[in-house]
Amino acid sequence: FNSKLPGVGTTIFTTMSRLAAELQAINLGQGYPDFDPDPVLLQRVARALGNGHHQYAPMAGIETLRRAIAAKTAECYGARYDADTEVTVTSGATQALMTAVLAAVGPGDEAIVLEPVYDSYVPAIRLAGGIPVAVPLRPPRAGDPRYRPDWGRVRAAITPHTRLLMINFPHNPTGTVLQDDDLDELERIVEQTGILLVSDEVYEHMVYDGVRHASVARRPALAARAFLVSSFGKTYHATGWKIGYCCAPAALTAEFRKIHQFMVFSVSTPMQHALAEHLADPAPYLQLPAFYAAKRDRLAAGLRRSRFRPLPCPGTYFMLADYSAISDLPEIDFVRWLAVEHRVAAIPVAAFHGDPDAPASNRQLVRFCFAKRDETLDDALERMRAV
Amino acid sequence: FNSKLPGVGTTIFTTMSRLAAELQAINLGQGYPDFDPDPVLLQRVARALGNGHHQYAPMAGIETLRRAIAAKTAECYGARYDADTEVTVTSGATQALMTAVLAAVGPGDEAIVLEPVYDSYVPAIRLAGGIPVAVPLRPPRAGDPRYRPDWGRVRAAITPHTRLLMINFPHNPTGTVLQDDDLDELERIVEQTGILLVSDEVYEHMVYDGVRHASVARRPALAARAFLVSSFGKTYHATGWKIGYCCAPAALTAEFRKIHQFMVFSVSTPMQHALAEHLADPAPYLQLPAFYAAKRDRLAAGLRRSRFRPLPCPGTYFMLADYSAISDLPEIDFVRWLAVEHRVAAIPVAAFHGDPDAPASNRQLVRFCFAKRDETLDDALERMRAV
Ligand SMILES: CSCCC(=O)C(=O)O
Ligand SMILES: CSCCC(=O)C(=O)O
Repeated sequence: FNSKLPGVGTTIFTTMSRLAAELQAINLGQGYPDFDPDPVLLQRVARALGNGHHQYAPMAGIETLRRAIAAKTAECYGARYDADTEVTVTSGATQALMTAVLAAVGPGDEAIVLEPVYDSYVPAIRLAGGIPVAVPLRPPRAGDPRYRPDWGRVRAAITPHTRLLMINFPHNPTGTVLQDDDLDELERIVEQTGILLVSDEVYEHMVYDGVRHASVARRPALAARAFLVSSFGKTYHATGWKIGYCCAPAALTAEFRKIHQFMVFSVSTPMQHALAEHLADPAPYLQLPAFYAAKRDRLAAGLRRSRFRPLPCPGTYFMLADYSAISDLPEIDFVRWLAVEHRVAAIPVAAFHGDPDAPASNRQLVRFCFAKRDETLDDALERMRAV
Repeated sequence: FNSKLPGVGTTIFTTMSRLAAELQAINLGQGYPDFDPDPVLLQRVARALGNGHHQYAPMAGIETLRRAIAAKTAECYGARYDADTEVTVTSGATQALMTAVLAAVGPGDEAIVLEPVYDSYVPAIRLAGGIPVAVPLRPPRAGDPRYRPDWGRVRAAITPHTRLLMINFPHNPTGTVLQDDDLDELERIVEQTGILLVSDEVYEHMVYDGVRHASVARRPALAARAFLVSSFGKTYHATGWKIGYCCAPAALTAEFRKIHQFMVFSVSTPMQHALAEHLADPAPYLQLPAFYAAKRDRLAAGLRRSRFRPLPCPGTYFMLADYSAISDLPEIDFVRWLAVEHRVAAIPVAAFHGDPDAPASNRQLVRFCFAKRDETLDDALERMRAV
């Protein structure tokens, strides 16, 4: 059997969640909350189930949800997506990403990803017959402890075969965010080269310290060439519902939908009805930065009292921590040891160096998810202070 | 923009459902029930939502559901699928079909479909870089009013490049089912040629007149080379929930999951919990043949009192009807006329001749869906008697 994805094994998220369950470790690995969605949202789901919303939704999504997504994107970023021809509801951001890549990338096309890179990007490019090209983020250095996109290296990686650049800010796993001048630079690159963008913005509502999220939707010149992908899983504490969306100009959406319609056809009807109502109220997502910043600060303060050194976390619900004061083990061995010996599960950053041809991170960094109840964070921190 | 699927437009199902809504026509087109799922199942969903099942399910599906699927397939067909390594829960049968095709078919591989063919098969093959090869079912003829698979023509279409045969019995749209001697023939073909099968059996519990469903899972030699695809949407009157599954030998499942994990990662957690409980009770699906046979008979009897001539319907919830006594219009024009003039929406069989290179059906046949309340069927029949 000729494998389409010969390099792919069990994902690190699955491996670590399984290990955490086996060891009864506190799971700060795979990114998901250990608390429930808003009861108001659950009531909306119950109502949708009671109202007979059980049969196929329209292929692109129900109209009220597409309109609510367009309105929210206009409200937050000033973008003007047409709900009928430019918004498609998907089975989570993962399906949106796969569909956008399959729509945009053909055999022999190059697609640039920024490393560390989320684990689905490179396989999606390979499945499309494309050639993934990894460009590293600029790592933390003396005087600047942040990961930063390195637009010079992105430019240098663009060839006449480059079709697509995949970005993901707020960035998983580093937490770094884009600034306005990054959007300027990205605009120049896109205009000069004519490449397309896939912008995975699932952490759009987890940007802290008063900074506003630099969505590609803020810039018409970027939006004109971008598949903007987001999801309700992160925003509404319901990663298991698997409802996301893609906003893209009509010409891109038309191609996106041709694939979407034969990949899943449509998406859970009752959940779409509930989310359409819930999204009309901005309060839940406007409260997220304060809600998660408090958890971030709790985790950072606790880690500072341990021998882990937390890195700055301007966005996402992930925080990197340097363990070089604790151990010389490579990351994957360290997270195993940490789970077994101290009963805390984390994710090695090396797992985000998906392309076997790319250099590993060469650092001693692990990722902790802080989308957890305060008690969970406190328990984990107590264990980590013993490390 | 270089389209991956240049030929694809809006599906006939979407077009006709939209037209039906605009015209307030009775919609016997797109296949979905106009009644709700079992209240017991809805209570199970409510309980799953109340029990905090909101975060990522395991990539392959929750264990209880995978076990219930394996147990059901063993109970119904004597198949022995291992729940851990051979069963994967998907976002509906559509996603399972797309994933199986992407796993099995590579650039230049040929994949055989039987025409009339469900609309997602050919685009899935094209997206994989494969070459769709359409083999017609043997159409009804004097003395035998059934569509039948024509194994001689299937054999003749197999070349050294043939990788896959996609079958779909009970068959949408013709309603035809496989018999035991079809399985014999299929076994010989598979053994002699080494091709793989994708068997779309979403109508497995809609086989009438005491006939037992000839699943590929009944034959170890077929199951050993097959992706068996089914879904809960049809069986539980919930086409909008989008939960299906794929059973396949471990080696095939491993490749299937590599793609599944980056296409959707996982599937609605609350719905999986509800379905796992519901599937443990065989009564709901064992009652389906009697439930739907009564509707089939109601529709057939009504059509016989009109100028439509119903074809035999041994399976599915679709019935074909010949309108040659009514009109000379081509099918697509006839269904439009029927919707506009008589306010009943149907599906032209020509729409299932997906490959533009294949000959059209050259018949005057439309498809009616009888997954409708008796009142709906009666109202539609009254309108059709006026035709
Ligand atoms: C789909 S499992 C991985 C969840 C996630 O986004 C992460 O942990 O990075
Ligand atoms: C996914 S819409 C089509 C539903 C269906 O299976 C049919 O009507 O044939």
